[in-house]
Amino acid sequence: MLAVHLESGRVVLRAQALPRVPRGFARIRLLAAGICSTDLELQRGYYGFSGTPGHEFVGEVTDASDKTWIGKRVVGEINLACGDCDWCRRGLGRHCPTRTVLGIVKHPGAFREFLTLPVRNLHEVPKTISTEHAVFIEPVAAACEILDQVKIPKGERVAVLGDGKLGLLVSQVLQAHGAQVHLFGRHREKMRLVEPTGVTTEIAPKKLPGAAWPLVVDATGSSAGLQAAVSMCIPRGTVIMKSTVHGLVSIDTAPAIVNEITLVGSRCGRFEAAIPLLSSGKVNVGSMISEEFPLDCAPQAFARAAKKGVLKVLLRPPG
Amino acid sequence: MLAVHLESGRVVLRAQALPRVPRGFARIRLLAAGICSTDLELQRGYYGFSGTPGHEFVGEVTDASDKTWIGKRVVGEINLACGDCDWCRRGLGRHCPTRTVLGIVKHPGAFREFLTLPVRNLHEVPKTISTEHAVFIEPVAAACEILDQVKIPKGERVAVLGDGKLGLLVSQVLQAHGAQVHLFGRHREKMRLVEPTGVTTEIAPKKLPGAAWPLVVDATGSSAGLQAAVSMCIPRGTVIMKSTVHGLVSIDTAPAIVNEITLVGSRCGRFEAAIPLLSSGKVNVGSMISEEFPLDCAPQAFARAAKKGVLKVLLRPPG
Repeated sequence: MLAVHLESGRVVLRAQALPRVPRGFARIRLLAAGICSTDLELQRGYYGFSGTPGHEFVGEVTDASDKTWIGKRVVGEINLACGDCDWCRRGLGRHCPTRTVLGIVKHPGAFREFLTLPVRNLHEVPKTISTEHAVFIEPVAAACEILDQVKIPKGERVAVLGDGKLGLLVSQVLQAHGAQVHLFGRHREKMRLVEPTGVTTEIAPKKLPGAAWPLVVDATGSSAGLQAAVSMCIPRGTVIMKSTVHGLVSIDTAPAIVNEITLVGSRCGRFEAAIPLLSSGKVNVGSMISEEFPLDCAPQAFARAAKKGVLKVLLRPPG
Repeated sequence: MLAVHLESGRVVLRAQALPRVPRGFARIRLLAAGICSTDLELQRGYYGFSGTPGHEFVGEVTDASDKTWIGKRVVGEINLACGDCDWCRRGLGRHCPTRTVLGIVKHPGAFREFLTLPVRNLHEVPKTISTEHAVFIEPVAAACEILDQVKIPKGERVAVLGDGKLGLLVSQVLQAHGAQVHLFGRHREKMRLVEPTGVTTEIAPKKLPGAAWPLVVDATGSSAGLQAAVSMCIPRGTVIMKSTVHGLVSIDTAPAIVNEITLVGSRCGRFEAAIPLLSSGKVNVGSMISEEFPLDCAPQAFARAAKKGVLKVLLRPPG
């Protein structure tokens, strides 16, 4: 079978044997996968990654110890947890200290014709969600994670910084939750995509409004984003740190301390929350797909995804 | 009357007229005041400060619109709030956007023979607390602020980083609250002061234990403290940012995001929580007084307070 491989910053194609299926696992035939900013960071060599990336996928189960899964169209939670530690017992397997992570940490990812995941990580995709849209279940779940961490009252005014894929999804998810979201970005055409859901948008001014929002989400992916988010937050307000930046970020901690701001790091989320949002159409992702490439054009797909202004690039298996 | 003045980094003495007493205010004769790290930062010119510093004090009311206060021994909350805005109505006058702050922002401080504060800022000092100990009510209240912001279950394991004045107070306050506090510092003799309250102590090793504590308080006052606190915190844990550092702090935000750490900026607190802790002796501050100077030796007192290893330096009015 065909597998994408990252090595020393290059995207290469390899022919591989079908992955074996350990007890409790399923083998999944890829239907579609999405290239995420994290994949581009792995390509740049962050986290010393080498191997097959890919963690946003939809596939069809072709083999599994539990035969009832065979033939089902599925997505899968990306953290492979031990299932047995304190974290796992509390339903927080995504913090299991011995976890591996699909396409990120010690488990080969989804950019290949067949992948494997534990059956307990799988969620069947309802018929109401197309395969292309279901690729977004993972990033929508990451946006939903905010709701798992912070209580956001209905009608709460929320500022989201950044109109990349994550910023657009976070805006829609929080708006669907009942917040009044205001998105600050740099691309009028991207921000237009979320306006039908009720999100108000604004090209980020040079001087952002100070101490104005009870909740601010930094989804800029830039090292300046966190400082901007803190200064926009009202005293005792909350800043969600949603986008990682490689390397050190310089911030003036004084305003965060004087105004007693709470900063919350936020990563992956539960798929259960994401599926109904896509199924109901409350979160609209169709307009966020920039392009599709066949898996054997992965090098070109990565190059395209890295271009400024490009949103989601999908990979499809050959044939 | 005598007043201490900071100008261009120098500590000078000035003769001044008695301050007038606006409606709702009290005039207070100084009994004792404490030099805080913030005062040393003001001296260094941070925040563009020029004027009379001092916000930790005990005094006797000599004049007030409400005559029942006259003769009382008092301490005072340092934020002079409008009393009328949303913040003030929610009991959060210390975040009132138009506030001035005693000895820090646009209200002359306590390092003078007579100071003024609104009567509503005053708390009578119970007889059970000596004047020297009552100087600590303000910084103990700042330590208590953590309990106002974060729920800490009884028995919770808490790491405190930094054995300066604030670290020693925070350790005692959280231990008195019922947490199991472990203090990491650099000075065996300072840390010994808090051991009788049950706090366990340790000279900070080069490599601090990673992902080990559900709650970590950074009271180091150093730019490396925040990064260390984040790496010591377990996934989904909380870091309290208690010490300001002038200028930019560099942190790697990735571990905070991957482990979904919550960082909470924490500043001043309510005096109501601090007074019983000092009154009952649950927080012991007697051993934290390094030295006393008369007010007219303020330049020497500031120099002494800035020395490494020195804890609280008190100022006393002449005579």
